[in-house]
Amino acid sequence: MTPIRIGLLGIGTIGSGTYEVLNRNLDEITRRVGRPLVITRVADLDLDLAKQVTNGDVELTNDAHTVTRDPDIDIVIELIGGYTIARDLVLDAIANGKHVVTANKALLAMHGNEIFSAAHEKHVMVAFEAAVGGGIPIIKALREGLVANRIEWIAAIINGTTNFILSEMRDRGIDFQTALDEAQEKGYAEADPTFDIEGVDAAHKLALMAAMAFGIPIHFDKVHTEGITTIEQADIRYAERLGYRLKLLAITRKRAEGVELRVHPTLVPEGRLIANVEGVMNAVLVEADAVGSTLYYGAGAGSHPTASAVIADLVDVARLITADPGERVPHLAFQPDQLSDTPILLMDDVETSYYLRMRLADQPGVLADVTKILGDQGVSISAALQVEPSEQESAADFVVITDTTTERAIRTAIASIEGLSSSFAEVIWLRMERLS
Amino acid sequence: MTPIRIGLLGIGTIGSGTYEVLNRNLDEITRRVGRPLVITRVADLDLDLAKQVTNGDVELTNDAHTVTRDPDIDIVIELIGGYTIARDLVLDAIANGKHVVTANKALLAMHGNEIFSAAHEKHVMVAFEAAVGGGIPIIKALREGLVANRIEWIAAIINGTTNFILSEMRDRGIDFQTALDEAQEKGYAEADPTFDIEGVDAAHKLALMAAMAFGIPIHFDKVHTEGITTIEQADIRYAERLGYRLKLLAITRKRAEGVELRVHPTLVPEGRLIANVEGVMNAVLVEADAVGSTLYYGAGAGSHPTASAVIADLVDVARLITADPGERVPHLAFQPDQLSDTPILLMDDVETSYYLRMRLADQPGVLADVTKILGDQGVSISAALQVEPSEQESAADFVVITDTTTERAIRTAIASIEGLSSSFAEVIWLRMERLS
Repeated sequence: MTPIRIGLLGIGTIGSGTYEVLNRNLDEITRRVGRPLVITRVADLDLDLAKQVTNGDVELTNDAHTVTRDPDIDIVIELIGGYTIARDLVLDAIANGKHVVTANKALLAMHGNEIFSAAHEKHVMVAFEAAVGGGIPIIKALREGLVANRIEWIAAIINGTTNFILSEMRDRGIDFQTALDEAQEKGYAEADPTFDIEGVDAAHKLALMAAMAFGIPIHFDKVHTEGITTIEQADIRYAERLGYRLKLLAITRKRAEGVELRVHPTLVPEGRLIANVEGVMNAVLVEADAVGSTLYYGAGAGSHPTASAVIADLVDVARLITADPGERVPHLAFQPDQLSDTPILLMDDVETSYYLRMRLADQPGVLADVTKILGDQGVSISAALQVEPSEQESAADFVVITDTTTERAIRTAIASIEGLSSSFAEVIWLRMERLS
Repeated sequence: MTPIRIGLLGIGTIGSGTYEVLNRNLDEITRRVGRPLVITRVADLDLDLAKQVTNGDVELTNDAHTVTRDPDIDIVIELIGGYTIARDLVLDAIANGKHVVTANKALLAMHGNEIFSAAHEKHVMVAFEAAVGGGIPIIKALREGLVANRIEWIAAIINGTTNFILSEMRDRGIDFQTALDEAQEKGYAEADPTFDIEGVDAAHKLALMAAMAFGIPIHFDKVHTEGITTIEQADIRYAERLGYRLKLLAITRKRAEGVELRVHPTLVPEGRLIANVEGVMNAVLVEADAVGSTLYYGAGAGSHPTASAVIADLVDVARLITADPGERVPHLAFQPDQLSDTPILLMDDVETSYYLRMRLADQPGVLADVTKILGDQGVSISAALQVEPSEQESAADFVVITDTTTERAIRTAIASIEGLSSSFAEVIWLRMERLS
């Protein structure tokens, strides 16, 4: 199968992440796609950096137009950012019949109508999964997964910087400026954080999502945009006392009269899943007529999460530019001749944590026996709860949560505990997953 | 553009939902796809029911094989369920060169390896988004959205019946049997609930997800499967005191030694998003090397949510069986000539709820003035909080949450409140969304 040849414009944070992930997971990706994806050319003004990231394995240039015009390139990835040079290069790539993959939300929010129109005329694709919600496949959900639905509204946390700041303000009672300083220290906010904290970045993404949800052009200029710079502690506290969390939401809703398009700090009932999205994470909640509510959660920024979306776009384009059945999405994700016979583990070999509820005699030395039995099997206790027996009872419930161990070890320990004369009932046990 | 002709096998709950949603949203769907999808034939043993659902608009038959062998049919939708007749029909459709869409997780868990192999030989697609997580586009996420990643593990709530039962047991302190009875009354559990409460349904879905995540065959027979029938109140309570929620999780994890494949009740730290998925809702948490954690949440069952996935599959197949650029996923989800010029509403016309924080004189009659001002603008109060002033203060913070109103009304009311002689500061106000 002919490889897909890719030209990469810009080898900064996202560009180098894309290069790294594509090369690190090349085997796994090729097992899925059935056809190699190869970055053959990289353009960046900083040739030293480009050489360092690519290890000299690809052709480098500081003239991006030689890539957009290279007849041997199938797909151009634009990861330069901004909307002047990036716009020229994307339009030039399209004019030269290249498919384009970009993570540039600002460019598409400002010039998307023009760019998509040019792409439509030239029968090429401009893929932009990485432009909204980082690694969350939200564009795919909106354009494909929910294609059967009339979308009613979208409410989204699509700026990690502001969600981090609001989470810190709430958790630690600090003010906006302190939280912003911290976000900058941790690399979650840029030196000039204006686009994030004033809601502009979220507005870029919202304009794109609204177009896809409702079949309207991109109206970035009509998004009502408010940031979080004036949020005070008092309001976070009062909202909490009333049962709400404060989030910077990007909201679009279709009404009979028209479309609402707005980014602003918003109180959300604390029981809603999206109210519990903390730190730099993103989430998009979509309400649609057939499926009801669906929510998509994940890392909205960062080098490798964004690379995940860029590469998914490369694969999509590779699959769509040919009708060869071998290029389709394989039924089980991997090409049929690429399935592996990895063994399925026996439960005894599974490793996780455990919850044990024991009914033990309320007398000295009993707990020592139990902890010794667990220790002999190499099982550590991470939390314990002893329930005080009532006066009439001679036994008490004793609950422990263990650290990670094998199911074999816990079963052996349980059998020993049940054999103790001080154990009055079968040990009730459940598995526990920390999911982190 | 030639329409895609579809044969529907089975017009029960999911079949009639698919028929209804496809017809109800046909304009919207055609605006996206650019090519009509038409159900031209329906097969069901109950012809009266079929006539009632379809209004006599399509050709009906009680012999499904006449559909799977009809040379005019492009795609066959199998919504009969079970794994005997359904298997024969799916294999017959494939043998006759039809693409197949199915929601049948039991069939694919048992016979998927055979079915996908037959489909691969005949160069046709078998699409099954509806088989896992109902309307959540999780198959698409695993096969396409996360294609760049090595998937590390999946932990999923993929059975709504058991999640409903566990939610009710926790919320209301009722026992398993009472919660099951209630689930049956509400239609969330079948008359014979065995497959749900014993974890078999979740195991079907897990076997499919594990194959897609790790590139292994479908190993339903090797899934360790435990249900929730023995769960007791005491353990739900103790787990809660220790900071955990109890969920029926389907878990698969790739380790150096092999793949873990298990369905069982599991304690999950209460702070995790998936621990807060309640009632019949489903959620799939995926950990992958590039993107990190992503989570997909939505309705895992039900007529219209499942129809949403079935129709998404129809559209996918329609798009993939031709390389015509006009058949691709459009950039902005809708075909370029199908964008509408729906107006974007002014903020004054936006309708939502509001949070107001007022600094008011601590004297009689002040609150009456405020509520009258709000009432005059047609604004109702849904919750209020009065913060007791300290002895030194002559003013107090007064916070209200309003019912839904327009931004125009709230701005007018705020201006009036700020004009009161008893108002000592600017009114701080924020928007609130109930998201329900």
